Formats: sequence, C-alpha cells, structure tokens
Amino acid sequence: MSIVVVGSVAYDGIRSPSGAVDRTLGGAATYFALAASYFTKVRVVAVVGDDFSKKDEEVLRSHDVDTRGIEHTQGKSFFWRGEYGNNLNEAKTLETQLNVFQNFNPQVPKEYFDSEYLFLANIDPVLQGNVRRQMDGRVKLVGGDTMNYWITDPNHRKNLLQTLKGVDVLLINDTEAKMLAAEPSVPRAAQKVLQMGPRALVIKHGEFGATVFFKEGEFGGGRHPFRAPALPLEEVRDPTGAGDSFAGGFMGYVASQTKLDREVFKRAMFYGGVMGSFTVERFGTERLQSLSREEIDARYQVFRELTHIA
Amino acid sequence: MSIVVVGSVAYDGIRSPSGAVDRTLGGAATYFALAASYFTKVRVVAVVGDDFSKKDEEVLRSHDVDTRGIEHTQGKSFFWRGEYGNNLNEAKTLETQLNVFQNFNPQVPKEYFDSEYLFLANIDPVLQGNVRRQMDGRVKLVGGDTMNYWITDPNHRKNLLQTLKGVDVLLINDTEAKMLAAEPSVPRAAQKVLQMGPRALVIKHGEFGATVFFKEGEFGGGRHPFRAPALPLEEVRDPTGAGDSFAGGFMGYVASQTKLDREVFKRAMFYGGVMGSFTVERFGTERLQSLSREEIDARYQVFRELTHIA
Repeated sequence: MSIVVVGSVAYDGIRSPSGAVDRTLGGAATYFALAASYFTKVRVVAVVGDDFSKKDEEVLRSHDVDTRGIEHTQGKSFFWRGEYGNNLNEAKTLETQLNVFQNFNPQVPKEYFDSEYLFLANIDPVLQGNVRRQMDGRVKLVGGDTMNYWITDPNHRKNLLQTLKGVDVLLINDTEAKMLAAEPSVPRAAQKVLQMGPRALVIKHGEFGATVFFKEGEFGGGRHPFRAPALPLEEVRDPTGAGDSFAGGFMGYVASQTKLDREVFKRAMFYGGVMGSFTVERFGTERLQSLSREEIDARYQVFRELTHIA
Repeated sequence: MSIVVVGSVAYDGIRSPSGAVDRTLGGAATYFALAASYFTKVRVVAVVGDDFSKKDEEVLRSHDVDTRGIEHTQGKSFFWRGEYGNNLNEAKTLETQLNVFQNFNPQVPKEYFDSEYLFLANIDPVLQGNVRRQMDGRVKLVGGDTMNYWITDPNHRKNLLQTLKGVDVLLINDTEAKMLAAEPSVPRAAQKVLQMGPRALVIKHGEFGATVFFKEGEFGGGRHPFRAPALPLEEVRDPTGAGDSFAGGFMGYVASQTKLDREVFKRAMFYGGVMGSFTVERFGTERLQSLSREEIDARYQVFRELTHIA
C-alpha cells in the first residue's frame, strides 16, 4: 500500500570528521521517501523554492516517488547547515534558513487520497494536524515524528499534544521522549507518552538501536516492548537523516504488509535500523539512492545474527 | 566448573532517587560471586577488616561461595559511598576509603588451584597480574574488568597493558573502551582493544545492554559481534553492582558449560544482562541474595522475547 509523507525537502550543508559537503539534497521527507521507496510506493507533500533542481527532483522520481504534492514556489528552499564532532550522536546546528517553509500550507493532492498510510515528519504540529485532517477517514495508520522545539515551547506543545491524539505510531529519540513526558526514566516516559494518543511508541537510541513500546491490547498483544539493535559500524561518515531513514524503513515495511500485528512491527524495527545503518555510511542521501532490495535483505540478516541466539 | 574471583568485598553507602542505605554489603567480588553462584561454584580472593560481620560472610557461604581466600586483617574494610541523580547511568563518588585494601597482597589458596576459570575484578592491574600468574597453567579462561583510573594514569596504564595480555575476555563500558583505545568510535575502539591481548571484548552500554566483539578466528568464529539488550525497567532503584553482576552472570554461565563457542558466549551475554537487571531492582545485593534459577531462566525468556523475531 502507498504512503503519504509530509515534511521538508531541502538542502543541507554538512561537516563531520569524515569530510564536508556544502549543499546536498536533504530534508526529513526526502530521507523518509527514499528509505521507504524500497518497500512501497511513496507520495510526498512538501514545498521547495525556485532553486530546487530538476536533478534533485529526479532523484525522488527515479525511486518511483510521487512528487505531485511538492509545491514549487518563489524563493529559496529550506536550508540547514550543521556539523558533527567526534560524538556523532549529536549535530551542532550552525544555520537554519526556513525560506519557503515559512509560509508552507500543505495541501494533499486528491491523487493521494487513496493512500492508507501517512507519515507526519518533523514540522510544526499545526501543519501535521492540518495534513492529518485532510487524510481523516482515509488512512489506516498514521506515523509521526517531532523534536525538542515543539515539545518545550508552551504554545507549540499545546498544538503537539492535540496532534498526537491523531498519531498511531510516534517515532522520537530518548531525549525527546523524556522531555515530552517530563520524566527521566525512558521506560516510564514511554508509558506516559502512550497515554497521549499513540498506540505504539518507537524510541530511537542512536548507536544503540531502538525500542518499541506498545499500549496494552493494541496491535494484538500486551505491553511487552521489543528492542532492535543498531549495527556497530566502524565508519560513520554522516549521521544526518539516520532517524528519518529509520522511520522510512519502518513505515515502508509496515505499509508493504497486509497485517498490522506485533511480528510485522518487530520486523519493521529491524528494517528501520537497516535503513539507518546504510544512510550513515555516506554523506547525505548518497547511500540511500543506490541501494537494492537484495542489499537491504542481506543486512537484515546481519541484524538477525547480531541479536539472535540459535 | 568452578571460578575464582579476586576483587573487593566491601561496604557501600548508597543514595539514589529511590532511597538510601548507610552501610550495606558490597564490592565487585561480592556482586560477581553472588551472581555467578546461580550457575557454578565460586571461590573468592579478597581482604576484609575486623569490622566485616559474620552475617555478611554467611551471605556468601549460603550461596555455596568458597570464602577461604578472604583474608581477615586488622583495620577497616574497603568502604565506598556514592549517589545517583536522575541519570542513573552515572554514580557520583562521595567517599572512597581503601582501608585494608591499601596493603592487599592477594594469595590464591592451594585449595582453589583446580579452578579452570578466573575473573580479575576491577583492582590495581599489578594485583590482577599477580593473581593471574598464580593461576598460570591452571586456568582455561580468564575474564577481567578495569576502570578509568588505571586506564588514564600513565604508570598504571603500563601495568594494565601488561595484565591485558593475560586476559581472554575483557568486560568494560563504552567510556572505558574509548579511553583505553584513545578512539571515539566504539566499534573501532573494540578492534584496537582486541589487539592488546583479549580474544573477546564485552562492552557494556548501561541501559542499552552490551556488545561482545571477537578477535577473528577465536572461539570458533569470525569477527561478527553480538549484541544483548538490557531490560527497559520502569523502576531502577540502585544501579550499584550492575556491571559486576553482568560479569558474574556472564562468566558463571560460561564456566557452567563444557564448550567455549560463540553460542555459549551469546547465551552468556543474555545471562549477564539478566543478572544485572535483577541487581538494580533493589538496593545493594538484596535482590541477588534471594533469587532462584527458575526466576533467572524466566527472565532469560523475557530477554529473548524482547529481541527475537519469530
């Protein structure tokens, strides 16, 4: 089944101990769409400026990503510049230019209305809620992401809590989960977040993988969490987009299945980790652009061997 | 098979957000011995002062731990006082009294000489090396632990590097591995540490579990690592001794098996995590004192469910 993603399609400038790029295709919706495209049909809702190149749009199209929902408008595309030190888990943001994103009013094209899956990448919760409403009564499962800024600012937080009521699976990291729940213990924070709306909560632990917590009774099971590893990679070149690639692998795999049960979610957690592990091997979306499903499934087996006892 | 452990048998004062104890039985060798005692016969080499109570020695004896190698001497037992804030991963040391440990010259009793396994808990690498030599030609597998202090001080480091040549399996945490290898990437640090002597390296990630890295060809396999989870516990009362309990569960399980292959190590990683998860549920050694093998195996199954895909 196809999946609609709303979020940023942008340009990034990235510096890490392994090198630097001045301006490369990026944005949460881009990473998500490319990662998910190996599993299912993806449709993007976003806005770009007149600096957005045909070549970069073609990167998405060549992965059979539907770009009819990408609005082209006057001005410059969203731009982010950041750098990583030796601690690759944390990016230092050097510059954020919202540009055309400032007046983004996302419209889901009618052609997308038959999609049964929706992913709300990290943007203003008001816009997330707006897109969620446009897909009301159409979608079977809604995934979402958010970040510190929307969690801590009192006004944005109010909007976020409203939007969370319409999100089935929230994917955030440890710090965000603790902030959202105002609770220093991750497992306790997870239980609090599950009271805010989501039926499942995926907490990403960076180099240590991710854990999915379920609300009792949802998706055919009890409260038992499931933990997927990340690959111990000797060379991480650029962590940008790892979380969005995880979300793309996770949601893409879920959307490719007919059932929505715990076993599907467990495998989706592994596919999420697999896609994240590919992304960080190269700068930007380079590795995500050139994968094959065979490479993905081979790495899935590596993840199994990393964790499974005979 | 039986296992000899050398390390501290001590008293601890602990404060955490869940409560406090002024003085309770502690020390790395104590946690290790109690955890390992559920799998195999354990023999302790340590030193205590005249304040060490018969009741506390009886805690060890009641778990069939051999205490003939515990030297009783004039003075006070090793004492550590620390506290945990909301970040339970890190203890703040408030007080360390080496006391009788200052002049400790560990002697392995002749009665221990038929033990095939040895664990060098975190003490001065010179003492670790000394005990290692006393067991030379007798033991089949040597495990070891160390800490920042021995890694960073240039003189101690020299001794540590010497001792590491005689350690088959080193168990340390992420920070220690990075310091030891002077390398910010954990997987790369692991490869460097494996060049220092150990044939296997277990890196503990606190609430995120642990990863074992192998030297190519050792223990019947290649370089593939294996990652075991930690249980997402909603209530962690006192993290003291979690690492030593992990080591006890790990080494105790290994010593209970006839083979020394990868599958044994994988299961040992799970049993290590299981024993650590019990320890942190109560203060000090309380939970470790009252376990049953049935409870341990039931939790091992929970660890499997947490990680395994059908």
